[in-house]
Amino acid sequence: MTALSRPAAAVGTLPVEMAVEMAEMGAAARAAAAVLATAGTDAKNRALKAAAAAVRAAAPAILAANATDVAAGRAAGLSAAMLDRLALDDRRVAAMARGLEEVAALPDPIGATIAQWTRPNGLAIARVRVPLGVIGIIFESRPNVTADAAGLCLKSGNAAVLRPGSESFRSSRAILAALHEGLAEAGLPAAAIQMVPTADRAAVGIMLGMTGLIDVIVPRGGRGLIERVVAESRIPVIRHLDGNCHVYVDGAADLAMARAIVLNAKMRRTGVCGAAETLLVDRKVAATHLPLIVRDLLDAGCAVRGDAAVRAVDPRVTAATEADWTTEYLDAVIAARVVDGVEAAIAHIERYGSHHTDAIVTADADAARRFIAGVDSAVVLHNASTQFTDGGEFGMGAEIGISTDKLHARGPVGAEQLTSYKYVVRGTGQIRP
Amino acid sequence: MTALSRPAAAVGTLPVEMAVEMAEMGAAARAAAAVLATAGTDAKNRALKAAAAAVRAAAPAILAANATDVAAGRAAGLSAAMLDRLALDDRRVAAMARGLEEVAALPDPIGATIAQWTRPNGLAIARVRVPLGVIGIIFESRPNVTADAAGLCLKSGNAAVLRPGSESFRSSRAILAALHEGLAEAGLPAAAIQMVPTADRAAVGIMLGMTGLIDVIVPRGGRGLIERVVAESRIPVIRHLDGNCHVYVDGAADLAMARAIVLNAKMRRTGVCGAAETLLVDRKVAATHLPLIVRDLLDAGCAVRGDAAVRAVDPRVTAATEADWTTEYLDAVIAARVVDGVEAAIAHIERYGSHHTDAIVTADADAARRFIAGVDSAVVLHNASTQFTDGGEFGMGAEIGISTDKLHARGPVGAEQLTSYKYVVRGTGQIRP
Repeated sequence: MTALSRPAAAVGTLPVEMAVEMAEMGAAARAAAAVLATAGTDAKNRALKAAAAAVRAAAPAILAANATDVAAGRAAGLSAAMLDRLALDDRRVAAMARGLEEVAALPDPIGATIAQWTRPNGLAIARVRVPLGVIGIIFESRPNVTADAAGLCLKSGNAAVLRPGSESFRSSRAILAALHEGLAEAGLPAAAIQMVPTADRAAVGIMLGMTGLIDVIVPRGGRGLIERVVAESRIPVIRHLDGNCHVYVDGAADLAMARAIVLNAKMRRTGVCGAAETLLVDRKVAATHLPLIVRDLLDAGCAVRGDAAVRAVDPRVTAATEADWTTEYLDAVIAARVVDGVEAAIAHIERYGSHHTDAIVTADADAARRFIAGVDSAVVLHNASTQFTDGGEFGMGAEIGISTDKLHARGPVGAEQLTSYKYVVRGTGQIRP
Repeated sequence: MTALSRPAAAVGTLPVEMAVEMAEMGAAARAAAAVLATAGTDAKNRALKAAAAAVRAAAPAILAANATDVAAGRAAGLSAAMLDRLALDDRRVAAMARGLEEVAALPDPIGATIAQWTRPNGLAIARVRVPLGVIGIIFESRPNVTADAAGLCLKSGNAAVLRPGSESFRSSRAILAALHEGLAEAGLPAAAIQMVPTADRAAVGIMLGMTGLIDVIVPRGGRGLIERVVAESRIPVIRHLDGNCHVYVDGAADLAMARAIVLNAKMRRTGVCGAAETLLVDRKVAATHLPLIVRDLLDAGCAVRGDAAVRAVDPRVTAATEADWTTEYLDAVIAARVVDGVEAAIAHIERYGSHHTDAIVTADADAARRFIAGVDSAVVLHNASTQFTDGGEFGMGAEIGISTDKLHARGPVGAEQLTSYKYVVRGTGQIRP
C-alpha cells in the first residue's frame, strides 16, 4: 500500500496529519451544529427513531465488530470488569435502540421560552433555550455510550465529536454507521455525529485544545480520565468526580424503611456513583436500629468499618480510620458511625462528603427540612435510596453523565442540560436614553 | 515597628505569608457561604438596605479615600480615562447606595423551585435554586464595582472575595467598611464580603489557584485582565470577551427607525460592550436608507469605514479592510457594508461577529424571525438599539458582568445567574429495583 492510498484512519497516526484531520472534523461539526440548531423537532426525532431502527437492523454487524474488540481486549489482557463493560450482546444492543427511542419521545428543549418579561419602555425580553454547539465526549470502554451520548446531543441540537476508548473503537464505529443512517433518513448532516479518526491517544490531546471548534467536553469514565481531561483541557469541562454518598438514619426513622433503604443504597449495585459509602446513625436509635441495619449489611456480604458504637454491634465490624470517611469504595464495603442528630450528620457530610448524593431516612418533617437545606449536594433525598441518582430514574430518558460541578449543570446531565440560552429582545424602535 | 506588630496588610507583601492569609480568607469565605446559603430573604435584604444607608453615611470617608487614590493615580501617570473611571463624586456614591437598594428590591432567587415532577414510582423530584458558594471578583479601576458585585453576591447567597484594582484599593476598602456595617446590622458574618489583604498583583495569582475555596471567578475589566485570568485560573471563569456588535438594516426597515437605532447603537456611548461596531445594510435600501444613515454617523463625529457602496455615499468614508469586520473599536468608528438580504447579514455576523449582541431593524416579521433564529449571539434584538444589553436595562437591578460564554450564564449576569441548583427528592421509602 502506498502512502497516497492509505485510508484516512491509518494516516491518522502521524500527528501533523491527525491534527489536520481533527481540525477538519471540528470545522465540519461546527457547520453541522449550525444546521442542527435550527432543525425542527420532527427532523431530530425522525433521525433518532431511524437510528434506533438502524441499530436493530445492524445488530449482527455491531456484534461482529464488538467480538473483534473483545478478542483484542482479551489478548491485550483487559480485566474481567473491563471486558464486561466492553462486551455487547443482543440485550445491550436492543437497550441502545430503545434508549434512542426514549430520547426521541422526550420534549424538545430547544426553542423553549425559559422566561419572559416586558420592561417599562416596552421592550419584550425573552430567554430562549438554544444548543451549546459542538460537544466533545471522551469515554472509556462501554460502546453503548456512542449511541446514548450522540442521541442526547442530537435531541438538544448539538453536534457530537466522540472519542471512544481505543478498546471499543471498532464497536463504536459500527454503531456510528447506524446513527448515520438515521441522520440521512431525516436529511440531517452526517457531520452532526462524528468519531475521531483514530484510536491513538494523541487524538484526546488534540480534542482538548480545539477551542472555538468544540464548546464543551464531557469525559465519561474513571477518575484518571477525568483528571487528565480537567488538567489538560482548554475547553470547559462538565465533570463527574467522586460519589462519596451518605445515608443518615435519623432518630425518627421508621426501622423497616431504614433497613430497606440502607441495604439498597449500598448493595443494589456497588460500582455506581450513587451507591452509599458511609452510614450515619442517630445516637437516639443506635440501640434499636443500628444492630439490625449493620447485620443486614454483613449478612449481604458487605464489609462494615465502624466507630466504637458500630463495632459493638457485631465482631465482624472492623475499625474505621479517618480515611474511610472520604473513600468512595465502589465495592461491598461501607463506613459507619453514630452521630448526635441531624446537625451532626450534616456536619459530617459537609466535612467528608463529595457533594454528590446524600439521603436522610426520617418520619420527622422538620429534620428532613433541615437536612435538605444543610446538605450542599447535587441530589438530596428524603426516604429514598441514593441509587436513584440517574438520568433515567429522574425521567430524563438518558444521561450523558452526572455533574459534580455547580456551574452550568449539576447532577444528571440530560438533553436539557446540554443547552444554553439567548436573549431575544423585541422592540418598536426603542433607543437607549 | 517590629515584625510582630506589623498590621496584616503590610505583612501581605511576603508571598508565603500572603498565601497563608489568602487561604484563611478563603476558609472564612467558605464558612460564611454556608451561613448565607440558608440565610433568610429578610436578613439578606436588611443587610443590603443597611449597607446602602451606611454607604450614604460614609460618603465623606469614601470620597476622602478616593481622593487619595486619585492623587496617587495621577502621580503614577494614569490616563485621563482611567482617572475618570477611578474618581468618585457625590453622584456616584449615591448611585452605589441606590444600586444596593435596587438589588434588595429584587426577588430572592434562592430556594425557588425551578422545576418539579413526580415519577411513576411516586418519587417527587424538585430542582431548587441554591447559591454557587464563594465568588471571586477581580476588577480594575471602578471602585463602585465593590458595592455592585458584593450586593449581587449577597442577594444570591454567595460569599464574595474581591480583588479591586491596586489603583482603587483605598476607595474599595472604605466602601467595604460600609458594607460590613450592613452585614453586622442583619447579623450576617463579615466574612461574607472580603477583600484580598493586599493590592499586590501576586494576590490575583493566589486567588486563581484557590480551588475548593473559591467556586467561580468573575473578571471585570479589559481584555488583558480577562485573558490573564482565563489562562491562569484553575477555577471556572465567567468571562466577558469582545462585543463586536452589528446592526442590520433590512430591506423592510422603517427609515426613521433605522436612523435612530443605528445612531444610538453606535454613538450613545462608544466605550460600552453593547456599542455597535459594524453596520450592515440590505442592498434593497442601499439607495434610500444608506446615505442618510451614513451621513447621520459622519455628522455626529463617527468615522465610517465602508465597502465600495458605502464609500460612494460620502467622500469622508474611508475604505474598510478585512480587519475592520472583526474589530471592537470601542470608539467613534464604525465599519459598514451592503449585504444581500437577511441571510447574507446572518452569514457576515456568524463569520466576523463575537456572539455578543446583534440587532435587526425591519418591519418584516419573517425576516426578524430568520435573523433571531440564525444569529447565535447572547442578545439578539429586533427594532431596538444594541446598547440595551445591560443588566439594569434588562430589569436585573444590576449586573456583575456580561457573559460571552454559552456555559452556565450567557449575557448579563445578575443575581439569578450567580446560582446553581440542587435536586430535592422526596420519597416514602422507595428503593431502586
